[in-house]
Amino acid sequence: MNKLLYGVAYYDEYMPHERLDEDIRMMKEADINAVRIAESTWSTHEPQNGVFDFSSVDRVLDAMYQAGIHVIVGTPTYAVPAWMVKEHPDVLAVTANGPGKYGARQIMDITNPAYLFYSERIIRKLISRVSSHPAVIGYQTDNETKHYDTAGPNVQLQFVKYMRDTYESLDRINAMFGLDYWSNRINSWEDFPSVIGTINGSLGAEFAKFQRMLVNDFLAWQVSIVNEYKRPGQFVTQNFDFEWRGYSFGVQPSVDHFAASEPFDIAGVDIYHPSQDDLTGIEIAFGGDMTRSLKGGSYLVLETQAQAFPHWTPYPGQLRLQAFSHLASGANMVAYWHWHSIHNSFETYWKGLLSHDFKPNPVYNEAKTIGADFRRLSHELVNLSKKNQVAIMVSNEALTAMQWFKLPDGKTYNDVVRSLYDELYKLNVECDFIQPSSPRLSEYKLIIVPALYAVSDESLEKLNEFVRDGGHVVYSFKSGFADEVVKVRDSQQPGIIHEACGISYSMFVTPNQVGLKGKLIETADEGSEVEAWMELLTPTSAEVLAYYDHKQWGEYAAITRNRHGNGTATYIGCMPSAAIVRKVLAGAVKEAGLWGSDQELVFHVIARSGTNAAGKRIHYYFNYSNEPAAFVYPHPDGQELLSGHKVAGGQKLELAPWGLFIIKQ
Amino acid sequence: MNKLLYGVAYYDEYMPHERLDEDIRMMKEADINAVRIAESTWSTHEPQNGVFDFSSVDRVLDAMYQAGIHVIVGTPTYAVPAWMVKEHPDVLAVTANGPGKYGARQIMDITNPAYLFYSERIIRKLISRVSSHPAVIGYQTDNETKHYDTAGPNVQLQFVKYMRDTYESLDRINAMFGLDYWSNRINSWEDFPSVIGTINGSLGAEFAKFQRMLVNDFLAWQVSIVNEYKRPGQFVTQNFDFEWRGYSFGVQPSVDHFAASEPFDIAGVDIYHPSQDDLTGIEIAFGGDMTRSLKGGSYLVLETQAQAFPHWTPYPGQLRLQAFSHLASGANMVAYWHWHSIHNSFETYWKGLLSHDFKPNPVYNEAKTIGADFRRLSHELVNLSKKNQVAIMVSNEALTAMQWFKLPDGKTYNDVVRSLYDELYKLNVECDFIQPSSPRLSEYKLIIVPALYAVSDESLEKLNEFVRDGGHVVYSFKSGFADEVVKVRDSQQPGIIHEACGISYSMFVTPNQVGLKGKLIETADEGSEVEAWMELLTPTSAEVLAYYDHKQWGEYAAITRNRHGNGTATYIGCMPSAAIVRKVLAGAVKEAGLWGSDQELVFHVIARSGTNAAGKRIHYYFNYSNEPAAFVYPHPDGQELLSGHKVAGGQKLELAPWGLFIIKQ
Amino acid sequence: MNKLLYGVAYYDEYMPHERLDEDIRMMKEADINAVRIAESTWSTHEPQNGVFDFSSVDRVLDAMYQAGIHVIVGTPTYAVPAWMVKEHPDVLAVTANGPGKYGARQIMDITNPAYLFYSERIIRKLISRVSSHPAVIGYQTDNETKHYDTAGPNVQLQFVKYMRDTYESLDRINAMFGLDYWSNRINSWEDFPSVIGTINGSLGAEFAKFQRMLVNDFLAWQVSIVNEYKRPGQFVTQNFDFEWRGYSFGVQPSVDHFAASEPFDIAGVDIYHPSQDDLTGIEIAFGGDMTRSLKGGSYLVLETQAQAFPHWTPYPGQLRLQAFSHLASGANMVAYWHWHSIHNSFETYWKGLLSHDFKPNPVYNEAKTIGADFRRLSHELVNLSKKNQVAIMVSNEALTAMQWFKLPDGKTYNDVVRSLYDELYKLNVECDFIQPSSPRLSEYKLIIVPALYAVSDESLEKLNEFVRDGGHVVYSFKSGFADEVVKVRDSQQPGIIHEACGISYSMFVTPNQVGLKGKLIETADEGSEVEAWMELLTPTSAEVLAYYDHKQWGEYAAITRNRHGNGTATYIGCMPSAAIVRKVLAGAVKEAGLWGSDQELVFHVIARSGTNAAGKRIHYYFNYSNEPAAFVYPHPDGQELLSGHKVAGGQKLELAPWGLFIIKQ
Repeated sequence: MNKLLYGVAYYDEYMPHERLDEDIRMMKEADINAVRIAESTWSTHEPQNGVFDFSSVDRVLDAMYQAGIHVIVGTPTYAVPAWMVKEHPDVLAVTANGPGKYGARQIMDITNPAYLFYSERIIRKLISRVSSHPAVIGYQTDNETKHYDTAGPNVQLQFVKYMRDTYESLDRINAMFGLDYWSNRINSWEDFPSVIGTINGSLGAEFAKFQRMLVNDFLAWQVSIVNEYKRPGQFVTQNFDFEWRGYSFGVQPSVDHFAASEPFDIAGVDIYHPSQDDLTGIEIAFGGDMTRSLKGGSYLVLETQAQAFPHWTPYPGQLRLQAFSHLASGANMVAYWHWHSIHNSFETYWKGLLSHDFKPNPVYNEAKTIGADFRRLSHELVNLSKKNQVAIMVSNEALTAMQWFKLPDGKTYNDVVRSLYDELYKLNVECDFIQPSSPRLSEYKLIIVPALYAVSDESLEKLNEFVRDGGHVVYSFKSGFADEVVKVRDSQQPGIIHEACGISYSMFVTPNQVGLKGKLIETADEGSEVEAWMELLTPTSAEVLAYYDHKQWGEYAAITRNRHGNGTATYIGCMPSAAIVRKVLAGAVKEAGLWGSDQELVFHVIARSGTNAAGKRIHYYFNYSNEPAAFVYPHPDGQELLSGHKVAGGQKLELAPWGLFIIKQ
Repeated sequence: MNKLLYGVAYYDEYMPHERLDEDIRMMKEADINAVRIAESTWSTHEPQNGVFDFSSVDRVLDAMYQAGIHVIVGTPTYAVPAWMVKEHPDVLAVTANGPGKYGARQIMDITNPAYLFYSERIIRKLISRVSSHPAVIGYQTDNETKHYDTAGPNVQLQFVKYMRDTYESLDRINAMFGLDYWSNRINSWEDFPSVIGTINGSLGAEFAKFQRMLVNDFLAWQVSIVNEYKRPGQFVTQNFDFEWRGYSFGVQPSVDHFAASEPFDIAGVDIYHPSQDDLTGIEIAFGGDMTRSLKGGSYLVLETQAQAFPHWTPYPGQLRLQAFSHLASGANMVAYWHWHSIHNSFETYWKGLLSHDFKPNPVYNEAKTIGADFRRLSHELVNLSKKNQVAIMVSNEALTAMQWFKLPDGKTYNDVVRSLYDELYKLNVECDFIQPSSPRLSEYKLIIVPALYAVSDESLEKLNEFVRDGGHVVYSFKSGFADEVVKVRDSQQPGIIHEACGISYSMFVTPNQVGLKGKLIETADEGSEVEAWMELLTPTSAEVLAYYDHKQWGEYAAITRNRHGNGTATYIGCMPSAAIVRKVLAGAVKEAGLWGSDQELVFHVIARSGTNAAGKRIHYYFNYSNEPAAFVYPHPDGQELLSGHKVAGGQKLELAPWGLFIIKQ
Repeated sequence: MNKLLYGVAYYDEYMPHERLDEDIRMMKEADINAVRIAESTWSTHEPQNGVFDFSSVDRVLDAMYQAGIHVIVGTPTYAVPAWMVKEHPDVLAVTANGPGKYGARQIMDITNPAYLFYSERIIRKLISRVSSHPAVIGYQTDNETKHYDTAGPNVQLQFVKYMRDTYESLDRINAMFGLDYWSNRINSWEDFPSVIGTINGSLGAEFAKFQRMLVNDFLAWQVSIVNEYKRPGQFVTQNFDFEWRGYSFGVQPSVDHFAASEPFDIAGVDIYHPSQDDLTGIEIAFGGDMTRSLKGGSYLVLETQAQAFPHWTPYPGQLRLQAFSHLASGANMVAYWHWHSIHNSFETYWKGLLSHDFKPNPVYNEAKTIGADFRRLSHELVNLSKKNQVAIMVSNEALTAMQWFKLPDGKTYNDVVRSLYDELYKLNVECDFIQPSSPRLSEYKLIIVPALYAVSDESLEKLNEFVRDGGHVVYSFKSGFADEVVKVRDSQQPGIIHEACGISYSMFVTPNQVGLKGKLIETADEGSEVEAWMELLTPTSAEVLAYYDHKQWGEYAAITRNRHGNGTATYIGCMPSAAIVRKVLAGAVKEAGLWGSDQELVFHVIARSGTNAAGKRIHYYFNYSNEPAAFVYPHPDGQELLSGHKVAGGQKLELAPWGLFIIKQ
């Protein structure tokens, strides 16, 4: 990609009256140069089985081309027409809750052959029609694809075959998965019960992994079809999304983003986040760091919020801050979901750039300034590259395992991930994401490992080796506890990583008014209560950074650091306050020799940087706050690109509320 | 009706031992002159298919007639016998949750022909038998009839035909209902999917409207049968009820009371309300104003609480206060559910006038004073007529639409209705209820319009015209937002009423620590936080009564008033505190020239009035409080009817706790 | 039984690697002398239909015998193999929620003939094989057996026949159960509807009683089979459990423990309880008193917690305190669930004596001291006998009835039971449990009767007689309200017991900021709010101990005591604070002449005592607290058995935190 894209999702099909020319006029006014179309409207494009009508696609493509606006065409397979479900009710996924009902999107059994037959036909019809159109720059396959909990008899049958292919014998499965428990032992393949009712966490987690593989297969199959028509210069992408807690919160439980992104040309994502007083930029950074890590380069933000919900309507300046925050993480495209606000149905209050009245409004007006700056600075800001020395190791397997074995207070894997990520973000330490199977550990100096609950011996041994060779690791509690089929290790905990961590434990308790004490704790506030979990650690060779402050458990260590070979391994045996997490991470960053001037800045000032195509360092500074924020620019002289002003190293700068600077060094 | 009725529901069938003579003796002691029977006991009256046994009806009619007590006979169709469900399981409604189970009442598909066949037969058998009995003064058809969410395949089929009859073509439906969204477009009638799973708010709301029409049809059909037997002087009524929140809270979501009351001779209702320290009289007034509005005259309170629940057992004086409060709203009958407390089954703790021991108790003893006063004052108090100049416009369509598109904090349409009604009540401003289609707007001087979210252009234009012609309107937020099929207007908001209101807005947000400021706000307390919703209003010609008090949204108006033609339109763009609502309403009442001496009274003193048959003004004053309350009687000299004392205009009167005066002017 | 048993549940089948010899070595080190095996692993012992493999049973029996450890063998019927459900899906219970899913334990229809056939076969195969093995001392049938809400068509059919056998005619049933209500009257046996949907509390409660009878039948059937093989000196027991609120809370709703324990040789139970700062010993005492009462002698604690959950991991000293607390209630066995912590499946975080690493840990190390003391003191502590003069009368029927007719704040029957039991415990008054049908009332001086809501006339008359003859009774509210089919009595309340209680009431309300006043109330604190329920009592002959403190209800009595014949009946018409309950109970204990020196002790010091086989009094003193506790030993001189020290009557003793003394008088 050789320029920044500023885009919107556009639904000609939803318009209450003819709007195309006027919409394009308003888009041009905002320097919007890309639209995403067609992914949601199968029933419009194929009104009856085998009857096709692509007129809305055709006219939008033609009009956009005339206006110089690029188009990304989506395959419309994530929402199926009524006729299909009437003809073939079994295209709906059967889940643990029984058969589905028609109405919503994302309700199909993505392995159903009728669904696959019709999907392939509409994909071929649509993509073959549009691929040679000069407006089209790329494709999106399906949308926010997941497995929709499909678990009907056909899926169960495939799972049993997968189990036999993978583990070969039932004796081995019975042993690995612990099926003797509660008479769950399976002694003949024909007896294999539906996993829907299982209480066996190992088996349930394996089924979840199998379901995630269905997503990989489905997406790879779609890409292979689209690739038959794709022309040079065009790309295929996917709109991944994250664990949803009313916004993009953490690792997606239902999709292995790393494996699923494999067949795509470029990674794409949607990122939604709290706004107004709750805007911190964390989700923008989290989603960006994750998506950039998938294929190791720039990525597309295919959807993010314009006005969106009543609790998200941005304050003046926030839309602008958000857009440049995406670029600062390495995005080459920022696209809103969506252009206009929909007048019927379900997402009526998920507003677009335009309100239902299609009139200019404060948010649209702010978008005009963004579009103009994207256009003007595109050559400086596109293809920002990063070489991070810190990585966070995440795992779908650990996430699923902790859904089966929940923390006592309901906190989940992603809470642990975020408790670490968020503090790293506030320290202005940029990072990549990696999986335990990553062959590239040695590219990093510091690896953060949140709750790596279920993981193979091999991955843990590689982490030991990484430390021995001079790397630094920060583990949270529960890391290394179980193997890859969620069988708890029968060695002393924390299992294999005990070697690098220099600690052991055999008991863990629920914290109840337990604080911390010891060298790490300087103020009473810092020693405040730990949450969720506490392992009663005994150091074998580790240094104790903090002990528990409790009448009965006060002899046990809570946080330790161990020198092992040429590196260090830090272990956090509980969920301390954010301040303590930040302190522990700061220590690890220093140990790793990565502490720099940007780490001295105080949140809500956020620094992100990278190298542009011309090899220049680009430094972004953001103020995520309602108040102005001053800081000293700590890098060599440069130029602030938005204003054009020169900036000297050591110069004091003041950011407006929700303001930003982009300084080219 | 030429006298007040004081009544109870009476279940001879439920008695644990022979009670009839003793019950009648005790009723007579309490001056009870009406009982309601037979609506709940089909299985007793038709113990087997086609076998009838009306002995309990016969003996009760005879005994009551002997005692001079009138009888209202109910058709027993709202609870079906076991034999019917065994023979025809499909009489049970299929809902979104699947098939029903036998046991409770109100579980039938009210369109099922087997149910209708048996219903017609028992109605004809029962009513033909009793209609010539001299004890019978009227009939109630069914009981608290609703559609019970019936949505099985047969109902779906009828709905599809209704859609074709109403909208003619699928193209029109697709456009009006926005079905292109998420591939929901329907391109052939055969493909019309079950509405059970729909995510389309327009379609879902239309189905709810269709379900309400089933109730209208069912009740009209019952009335037509009963009318064949009804003799001169007898009436047919229905026992309507309200949205239930553990008590009668607001507009009934499942029934269009206005349309459904059409075939009846007189409107009937049940009203249940908080009691003890929480007794305010609001629900009595609300339910009464609504029911009186249905057919524009006196109505029957067919059920209200005697002892009822443990949290409702009335304090001394409350039962009396409640009874006269019903009369003050225009009721001609106050009847308790029920006479005795039931010894088995489900409503054992919903106690009647008598406890399970059938002995006189404090509540029964208080009823004796009420019965005596009803008898003594009947000629003065019966047929109280009202000519209100204020109306509240309510809409089942708006209610349903806001169930689909909920307010962020979970508040609903009825919360908005009640937030306005309650303050009007406390201002002692009496009102009627009207629907948007009402042809009689011009009879009122002030119309209050809560959250009229889904409504036709025509109705809004009539409201504009009403203002232009000198009327006054108070709108709450969300009024006029969507059309009658819940499609958001694509004009500038607040749509058509913008003309009268003189404001526009294109953004709305969720309030988060947002207060009010401006001329309306005199004290810090008054400016306290708004709730639920806030529209960012910009006046075009309106005067701003209050702005939002917030760093980012402080330039936007929150409450405005606009002079338009000869009238005014007030617009409340958020949900302010009760004090502010009261202030805005007081202003509108004054603008409308309706401010009088009763409005100067301070709640908990409540004034209600009307004109009796002799043309005399009757003024009720109630004290809804545990403490005595003094006030100055503001009308011309009169007589307090309960005591017989003369009262002079301007005289200071003191109401006992939970006390009342009835002053004939 | 002639010695104390210290045991664990042992699952050779679950071991991740060969452990048997090492496990036995570690057991011996802890003086563990009994293991319980085989109850959970049917699918291991019968891997395919008719194929048997008892190798893990054989090898464990042989090895335990070699080590001198006794074995209790369980019949493995509470968790069924996958093959059985594949062959016969209808072995799964159909409940009100529909058909079941395979996976968990305790999901069967315990009346299904396929299930019964296979159960009988595995029981005969297993028990015939092991009964002559010298390691085997006894058997457990099934585990924590309940009816699992089985309510499918076959169970419904049996229920209808049971109704006809029990009540003979439908007319009688209609009258007793009040089926005329809401048209539920049944007029032909064929019409009898499934009870699943019933709203009739009388019918629903009767069905629950019927379901409990299925449990009795099932267990008696299993015992009869095992008895065919049982050899002299061997016993058959059952592992009963209690209402589960995350721990053993109260009377088991689904099983009539008294009736179900009938066929067993000795009563067995599992008891789980809060720990750490929340350890009080109440559940240990409650479960022990109940289980001891079932067959009137010593009992087995077949399961209790070792490490268990993260919030239960015991503080140092607690495991020891718990073990001796069981003995103090009359247990002859204390066994942990379970030896090791399971590495897969569902109960991975319900840890055993050993952690997943099988290493010695602090809890195991404490167990070693317990085992040694059990062995050393076995001859002094085994077969502790008690002769209590206080009983608590409990009733499954009352419990079920109050599930149908709930208290307003959600409190249940067991909350009432516990509110009384807990204060009796803190007064160090030991008690038995009896049912209303008990023929042995006269053995007691004081009977506590919590919420005896549904009960026959006969039982109430016996209680009146008990008082007349010099006994003392304390009733809580709701006692005597309804008959044995949950029909409310139509006499004045509290029904038949009015005679002994000397009070009446016809109204009851929900307390809302209502305190108490009167002679019982000495401090403001004591008069604090009552909860859940308040009956407005009027004394006829009773003395009023407390009135309600409330503007409207202040004339009514809340707590009364009546002298009747030679005894007294105390009536508590509400749920007062724990302090007031304690005061009322203390008064009743004094009236009954049972107040002694142990009653002067202050909780958290707990005293329990009994007579050992040699006829010596054994006094246990426990300190349920994190702080040391001093008290004066109030009995004649004796010897503290753990230390061997002499103790003089009147000597001041200091208990360590969570410490205990055992003094032989």
